[in-house]
Amino acid sequence: MLSEFDLIARYFTRPPRHGTAAVLGVGDDCALLAPSPGMQQAISTDMLVEDRHFFRGTDPIKLGYKCLAVNLSDLAAMGATPVAFTLALSLPDAQAEWLQAFSDGLFKLADEYGCQLIGGDTTKGPLNICITIFGELPHGAALRRDAAQAGDDIWVSGTLGDPRLALAGYREEIILDSASMEAAAERLHEPIPRVALGIALRGIAHAAVDISDGFIGDLGHILQRSNVGATVDADALPAGPTLIRRSQELRRRFSLAGGDDYELCFTAPASQRDAVLAAAHAAGTPVTRVGSIESGAGLRLTDAGGAPLELEPSSFDHFTSP
Amino acid sequence: MLSEFDLIARYFTRPPRHGTAAVLGVGDDCALLAPSPGMQQAISTDMLVEDRHFFRGTDPIKLGYKCLAVNLSDLAAMGATPVAFTLALSLPDAQAEWLQAFSDGLFKLADEYGCQLIGGDTTKGPLNICITIFGELPHGAALRRDAAQAGDDIWVSGTLGDPRLALAGYREEIILDSASMEAAAERLHEPIPRVALGIALRGIAHAAVDISDGFIGDLGHILQRSNVGATVDADALPAGPTLIRRSQELRRRFSLAGGDDYELCFTAPASQRDAVLAAAHAAGTPVTRVGSIESGAGLRLTDAGGAPLELEPSSFDHFTSP
Repeated sequence: MLSEFDLIARYFTRPPRHGTAAVLGVGDDCALLAPSPGMQQAISTDMLVEDRHFFRGTDPIKLGYKCLAVNLSDLAAMGATPVAFTLALSLPDAQAEWLQAFSDGLFKLADEYGCQLIGGDTTKGPLNICITIFGELPHGAALRRDAAQAGDDIWVSGTLGDPRLALAGYREEIILDSASMEAAAERLHEPIPRVALGIALRGIAHAAVDISDGFIGDLGHILQRSNVGATVDADALPAGPTLIRRSQELRRRFSLAGGDDYELCFTAPASQRDAVLAAAHAAGTPVTRVGSIESGAGLRLTDAGGAPLELEPSSFDHFTSP
Repeated sequence: MLSEFDLIARYFTRPPRHGTAAVLGVGDDCALLAPSPGMQQAISTDMLVEDRHFFRGTDPIKLGYKCLAVNLSDLAAMGATPVAFTLALSLPDAQAEWLQAFSDGLFKLADEYGCQLIGGDTTKGPLNICITIFGELPHGAALRRDAAQAGDDIWVSGTLGDPRLALAGYREEIILDSASMEAAAERLHEPIPRVALGIALRGIAHAAVDISDGFIGDLGHILQRSNVGATVDADALPAGPTLIRRSQELRRRFSLAGGDDYELCFTAPASQRDAVLAAAHAAGTPVTRVGSIESGAGLRLTDAGGAPLELEPSSFDHFTSP
């Protein structure tokens, strides 16, 4: 008496692997995990809805990849090692081709990061993908949002703004040549979760956040929860390889408030600059120092020369409220 | 720059309580849990979609209660102690009254079971509620679906079928007087998760499952995964207090294949009958012995006199495919 949607679940059922934390996977009332002794568990959940987080008709391979990537990025921002995840999926219908491609994209990334699917739920309804992810880290090692201190450097991994540029291309706000569009779109659809960097920064960085809503908004979470302020050199922000060829105004806007970057923004004591660079090198991830944490509240932006930069709030509203 | 939906999240943000497993709750990239030394973790996820799992316009207090109740029921079916949960919520709009009522219903049950909300996600979209729940239990103590053995008794907690009767009333398949409708509807909207019973059955029961899709379907999961069969006395199934006043045919149909019962179906060695009854008494949950596990595959139904019972498959199709 298996329903169509019970059958769907089979696309996502693989036997638990030996040598992993999963004792019992998909197919019982609960999955069973055996947490590693002495470790804390980091848990995050993200819900992605069609027409809001992704376009209708998005390539299901890319969608499967990205759904897990954004969750891995949350683990990265805590410095946690990925362990496992659950997948709840609401689908308007059960198309074998779509399901095969979605699960291919999902498992490709899951295998790359050693992150095992241990349970889930599948139902009929408007397309909605909810992943809950589990990672591990030593007690007290988490890179929390509330741990920034005055005097810390502010760092950013990788580059910013190309995903927002791709979105502008899709929306025809900006006309891009096809090579630029393709390059920027790859950054939008296939963000690289900075897991190795997050782990390498344990004991070096103070605070971290992943940049999903835009640099200013996400750094703002650190400032608010750590009860500090910051000065940031807007022109030091590492613009993506496609964005960097655009105007200064667009570079600033999309680097500061683009969204969908899935890079890490983190703070570390100035005394740890060499350690940060060594960690980044070991993780194979470029990092750029863009500013510093200060005791006075608020975020101050400057240009490359240190002159205060006023950006029209209207430049951001449109981009930060999705 | 908080959006409307960031603000919504505040309905669900409460500070982590001392003396619990949560080290860090809502508001960072991840929540942090400190698993109890030597315990396994049980994890389950359920996605509830409007018009499929609940009617449009369902009282949000009841909806908040039920969303968590069905997840607690999954923990109960493993014999796990509730610890924490995450909530991902997609909402078409942000109505304060609805959110307050939904969170009231949710937290009432969460507090009753000592289960803490540690993280979540809120977004705009078609109404969809996804809870992932975490419990703990000693290594090897889980009541798994694959652990039934030939010779085991089959037991059911509480009563069955009243939720299905309420649904028949709502759908006007059956006309119920208002007192009956109210009593049956309470069982549909406010199932009692059998957490205490599940925990009390550790070391006594072999296999367990919670009855969400109907007794036959859910017992079927145990039979399939344990590679065994069963004989069940259909008339021994404990019909709900409203259903019991209806015809024998309806009692059998709704007890066998009603759905939404959220009772436990479990198996235990015949030698453990006294222990099962003592555990049920300690948990304050009535249990009824309804059949036995056999080595031959398949499910055989009998009437109270032991005569084979043939039920039209069509009686079930309608009810088991939601």
